[in-house]
Amino acid sequence: MEMAPEPSNSPLRFKRVAIVGLGLIGSSIARAIRSSGQPIEVIGTDVSAAVCERAEALGLCQSVERGLAEAVQDADLVIFCVPVGAYREIAEGVAPHLKDGCIVSDVGSVKAFVLATLEPLLPSSVFLVPAHPVAGTELSGPDAGFATLFVNRWCILTPPPDAEEGAVLAVRALWESLGANVEIMSAAHHDLVLAITSHVPHLIAYNIVGTAADLEAVTQSEVIKFSAGGFRDFTRIAASDPTMWRDVFLHNKEAVLEMLGRFNEDLASLQRMIRRGDGEGLFGLFTRTRAIRRGIVQQGQETAAPDFGRRAAEPGVK
Amino acid sequence: MEMAPEPSNSPLRFKRVAIVGLGLIGSSIARAIRSSGQPIEVIGTDVSAAVCERAEALGLCQSVERGLAEAVQDADLVIFCVPVGAYREIAEGVAPHLKDGCIVSDVGSVKAFVLATLEPLLPSSVFLVPAHPVAGTELSGPDAGFATLFVNRWCILTPPPDAEEGAVLAVRALWESLGANVEIMSAAHHDLVLAITSHVPHLIAYNIVGTAADLEAVTQSEVIKFSAGGFRDFTRIAASDPTMWRDVFLHNKEAVLEMLGRFNEDLASLQRMIRRGDGEGLFGLFTRTRAIRRGIVQQGQETAAPDFGRRAAEPGVK
Repeated sequence: MEMAPEPSNSPLRFKRVAIVGLGLIGSSIARAIRSSGQPIEVIGTDVSAAVCERAEALGLCQSVERGLAEAVQDADLVIFCVPVGAYREIAEGVAPHLKDGCIVSDVGSVKAFVLATLEPLLPSSVFLVPAHPVAGTELSGPDAGFATLFVNRWCILTPPPDAEEGAVLAVRALWESLGANVEIMSAAHHDLVLAITSHVPHLIAYNIVGTAADLEAVTQSEVIKFSAGGFRDFTRIAASDPTMWRDVFLHNKEAVLEMLGRFNEDLASLQRMIRRGDGEGLFGLFTRTRAIRRGIVQQGQETAAPDFGRRAAEPGVK
Repeated sequence: MEMAPEPSNSPLRFKRVAIVGLGLIGSSIARAIRSSGQPIEVIGTDVSAAVCERAEALGLCQSVERGLAEAVQDADLVIFCVPVGAYREIAEGVAPHLKDGCIVSDVGSVKAFVLATLEPLLPSSVFLVPAHPVAGTELSGPDAGFATLFVNRWCILTPPPDAEEGAVLAVRALWESLGANVEIMSAAHHDLVLAITSHVPHLIAYNIVGTAADLEAVTQSEVIKFSAGGFRDFTRIAASDPTMWRDVFLHNKEAVLEMLGRFNEDLASLQRMIRRGDGEGLFGLFTRTRAIRRGIVQQGQETAAPDFGRRAAEPGVK
């Protein structure tokens, strides 16, 4: 599905970029643009007055506007960096103020919903190029962002079939200038891929942390104390932004339920192996899963250093 | 369930400790004893000739013996550091060679099985004090160990009800001297606590990595590429030692199936929320799970630093 390689030295067309939502991702984009040294004016805005003030104090943007109209005025590129459940309202708010030829993009974790929601709300004189940088941490808010968040991470673009090629190339070039690798695919395929690589993992992490909290035979204090055995890693994932994740599950329902169905089938089979004492079956699966891990380390999406024991306890690390 | 605090300056009674199995945990104990500066002679042995050679090259122990009899001879403490499925054979091998008053301990992740298996096989002149340091990484083998693995981690002792108090205190003092915090509980309770904090998390991590590997609509290469969205953390857990984990699931069957049943019930309810579009229910769970995370960070079992975005991509970190 990847497009033919394009010259990455093609001129960037953005002089003024408006970032709507200054949380972890929005504030990281602002920082990354600034640290890239490109002559781009970044205008930020956020529905929260406290976030706007904090963004000003941090000096994240050239200016922080309180109103959507002021923020997007004269922008060549407007990036929605809010939970996808808020897209409709934001689109309605900005639509009358977008200049002709403006590109509208986003960073949402679901994409078919985004295309279906935004296309009818935007004027025909603007270009829609949805994007999803596959990067993040479990922290939220303008203080959590950092300029190198996207370095060597993938950013997936899901332009509509009739997208203008120049608009797609411009968004691609911007993400590449922030250190990301860009891949282009259909929104439907994106939603399926992310359902298994991101949405279902988050769902089962939230789920087991919830299960552990509700036990009677094991206290919450015991769960916390002995979390180093594996549970701890799930709590990190389950500490991610609740609003964002609620919206992901509400708006990628079909793909998530499809992948969850597969997960449940496989888990039932694993459960049966345990019940029957099928050591060979268990060993076979546990060996097979190591290959995927090796692939991730080899492709630079992870280091091989042990992380489960935590660096703080390792030699030579403070 | 915790015993009354004991003086941690009570004299250590071990002059000679035999470590059976020189993998991640066994080699870490050897390193930790040495770096603690205590006058303890550490004798190691391993069923694998290659591991014995590597342990000698690394200088992990005062001596590495090829035979069980030679390794445990004159030892005050013998620690089994092998997958629990191998305990019976090891116990039968060492039993005739243990000196009177010797303490036998272990580091296995399941404990009721260990008590039931070892007690009848050991002579009445030795003391059994099973232990489980809740620490580790996803790596295996003698090169993977390090001296600070147990620092500020919990080590759970599950002595039989009629255990000799002095033997329990001696094992406790050894673990404390390696930096661990010690807690004492029944083997049955241990197995329930670890089922939820460690065994089921590993099981569902193995499971989702297996599910992802078997999809037709999403390629393995896509799973690897876009793993930064959450999946990556599961692959780390699912890269743990297959033999060890096979044995855990075979020997903690009841507690694992019990906790897995709870997990499945909760997941079915979450699945229904998604199907019905119950945003409030989803948001409620996702908010509740943050409290457990905070508890883990506050109790020093984890740092608050974001780990999901990986340090390599963060400012000021190579």
